[in-house]
Amino acid sequence: MSLMTSQALNPPLTSPCGIVTLLTDFGLQDPYVGIMKGVMLSILPTLRLVDLTHGISPQSIAGGALALEASWRWFPPGTVHLVVVDPGVGSARRGLLVEAGGHFFVGPDNGVLESALAWRSETGAVPQLFRLDAAEYRLPVVSRTFQGRDVFAPAAAHCAGGVKPEAFGSPVLDPLRLPLQAPEPIPGGWQGIVLGSDVYGNLVTNLTQALLVQAPVWQVRVGGLRIPVVETYSSVASGELLAVVGSTGRLELSVNGGSARSALGLPVGAPVMLEPAVSEPV
Amino acid sequence: MSLMTSQALNPPLTSPCGIVTLLTDFGLQDPYVGIMKGVMLSILPTLRLVDLTHGISPQSIAGGALALEASWRWFPPGTVHLVVVDPGVGSARRGLLVEAGGHFFVGPDNGVLESALAWRSETGAVPQLFRLDAAEYRLPVVSRTFQGRDVFAPAAAHCAGGVKPEAFGSPVLDPLRLPLQAPEPIPGGWQGIVLGSDVYGNLVTNLTQALLVQAPVWQVRVGGLRIPVVETYSSVASGELLAVVGSTGRLELSVNGGSARSALGLPVGAPVMLEPAVSEPV
Amino acid sequence: MSLMTSQALNPPLTSPCGIVTLLTDFGLQDPYVGIMKGVMLSILPTLRLVDLTHGISPQSIAGGALALEASWRWFPPGTVHLVVVDPGVGSARRGLLVEAGGHFFVGPDNGVLESALAWRSETGAVPQLFRLDAAEYRLPVVSRTFQGRDVFAPAAAHCAGGVKPEAFGSPVLDPLRLPLQAPEPIPGGWQGIVLGSDVYGNLVTNLTQALLVQAPVWQVRVGGLRIPVVETYSSVASGELLAVVGSTGRLELSVNGGSARSALGLPVGAPVMLEPAVSEPV
Repeated sequence: MSLMTSQALNPPLTSPCGIVTLLTDFGLQDPYVGIMKGVMLSILPTLRLVDLTHGISPQSIAGGALALEASWRWFPPGTVHLVVVDPGVGSARRGLLVEAGGHFFVGPDNGVLESALAWRSETGAVPQLFRLDAAEYRLPVVSRTFQGRDVFAPAAAHCAGGVKPEAFGSPVLDPLRLPLQAPEPIPGGWQGIVLGSDVYGNLVTNLTQALLVQAPVWQVRVGGLRIPVVETYSSVASGELLAVVGSTGRLELSVNGGSARSALGLPVGAPVMLEPAVSEPV
Repeated sequence: MSLMTSQALNPPLTSPCGIVTLLTDFGLQDPYVGIMKGVMLSILPTLRLVDLTHGISPQSIAGGALALEASWRWFPPGTVHLVVVDPGVGSARRGLLVEAGGHFFVGPDNGVLESALAWRSETGAVPQLFRLDAAEYRLPVVSRTFQGRDVFAPAAAHCAGGVKPEAFGSPVLDPLRLPLQAPEPIPGGWQGIVLGSDVYGNLVTNLTQALLVQAPVWQVRVGGLRIPVVETYSSVASGELLAVVGSTGRLELSVNGGSARSALGLPVGAPVMLEPAVSEPV
Repeated sequence: MSLMTSQALNPPLTSPCGIVTLLTDFGLQDPYVGIMKGVMLSILPTLRLVDLTHGISPQSIAGGALALEASWRWFPPGTVHLVVVDPGVGSARRGLLVEAGGHFFVGPDNGVLESALAWRSETGAVPQLFRLDAAEYRLPVVSRTFQGRDVFAPAAAHCAGGVKPEAFGSPVLDPLRLPLQAPEPIPGGWQGIVLGSDVYGNLVTNLTQALLVQAPVWQVRVGGLRIPVVETYSSVASGELLAVVGSTGRLELSVNGGSARSALGLPVGAPVMLEPAVSEPV
């Protein structure tokens, strides 16, 4: 019985699969991403390294958190996700290693790993969190300006090589959470916001697919416009506005063959209303 | 005899080499490319993934087709080329797997795989074309907005893992062809057009190296300008215009140490005349 | 004795580790980088390829040299660094293979490999330099416009596969050196210059960490401004200027939470003075 309890509190750890993804706001102009890869390959030459994106807006913790949320579940169990969006580099902010959902996450304790931390509330599983403190899993000299190279990349490589999460440092019980704004209920529907846009000009909202089960036919209201929620871009005529569940599982505003960002000019944070359609929209 | 005929109609298939290239219009700002890589590595963790470019102009089928044409022959036999420029995603357009020239190609049936389809007319070999229909080689849930992730990436990974082309679906006999504008004969020479430009400002034309065997010395006429066709940039003085067979096997207009795009201001589609030079051009 | 001398002149060669890094000014819009990777994988399919950056300003030899200097030491011994910033392509400039510091370097003889050549003066070790002349380690047809594909990529792949440096061609004794401007002594300190800036707006100078041992507390003077040299960004208030040893081992001017490039508007080459601080700067 005590053994079972112990096992429940300490479930068997995920086995690393040798893949490390990289997600940063470094851009691709400078060799910073390449340097982190050199550090990791110096520790474990057989690593397979995959870029998620390095185009997060400089120091945008929310942008990094959203990109991570959209990506990590598509990788094999045991993947290590190295996330460096770190405006507090050199300050007292902690480094974290998180085990959640069969994956590992390495990055600063500033909310950018929110989708890993949220795994607990979604699933009831216990995420495993540890500080990145152990000197043997950092570079010998740790700068105060590039801890992606000196602390996070070495931790990711050692984790992918089989070092157990608890070996990196003491457990963390109070990670910084990122309050991603949730949609708010309004009579008959939901009020959401624009979170950002992608390269095609699709406007990503915080309205999720789960909300759509509550009625058969929906529309999005933005200012005086009523935009039909449909299954695919070609459900509306070329040049027309539509709303569709996009690649990230979130409702997106789009133009068939065009750019909703250009058509609507909505900034990040702009309100959008989700409400049952009064008639079949298309 | 009947066996020989059968073999001629069904030549031994190419063996995949474990490499998958990626060519899209996704850009690198969003994690879409990384997500496709995660899907492929979840199917076959040992894949070697190589980016061709993700900077194709959004939804430019011709741009994607040209970049693929310039690239695929440089890879080892058995490489799988995953091409996702897909403005018709979610519509009835088919997905294709093509075997041609000892390589495999996966992408939408919209003309972006033209250089693989053209292999037949160039070589007389029979390209093998199949629809991407088999449910077992797609993700369990196929969205109507991101079939790069749900249909094409899984097909590429399974193909690289040894699944035979005919297992993906029924043969396709009428793929959509991309009418890449061919040069037109004019008295003594050829009229071509500007297809695009590269990062250095070189203007790529549809005039090919093969046309140059018909005379010893050529020049390109653009408006009132006569530009010598030479062997290398340094064949003309710094700052001078030249025409040279570029990296893609096509004649390009360049400036030695400068940008022909800036110097000439020619848009895509602008006419350029190739004609024998009246005297030694340089 | 004669054997020892021979060994001193011919130290045991570094063993390649199977990793090739790529550093170019090709950008990521065109498939040129992918084509070079295809050429290398056709020679050695097991290569592991890592991008340093392809965002060097077109034809900026100094920019390429600085990015290489910042990066190569972070990779495992035996890494091959393929560097193609090559404004003289097609001219008589030589191609080089350099062995230095336990790494290999492949690129044009135009100064872009300066940090490998400088290894000699820094360490007293003898860099090994050879011309890339041997036809068997080039592609069968060598163009005069894309020798990254036809000469440098094949050399890098063959080098990573174990071909000895001396097999590529005759020794080179007079490589072109890049005179990276060194700081000049001024009374009590040093006059340096701005070398460039990174994606965060940090201004990188030619003032190095080594200069800082000569006094306990330093400041940088730019025009009438006095900027404290500190340990980390958060040593000053948000929005304030600071100078810090950055990711490249060079002193950088930064703004905590902002962009020094925007704040100071200094162009490349602008002078900056390093001098002892008259009082504790922060």
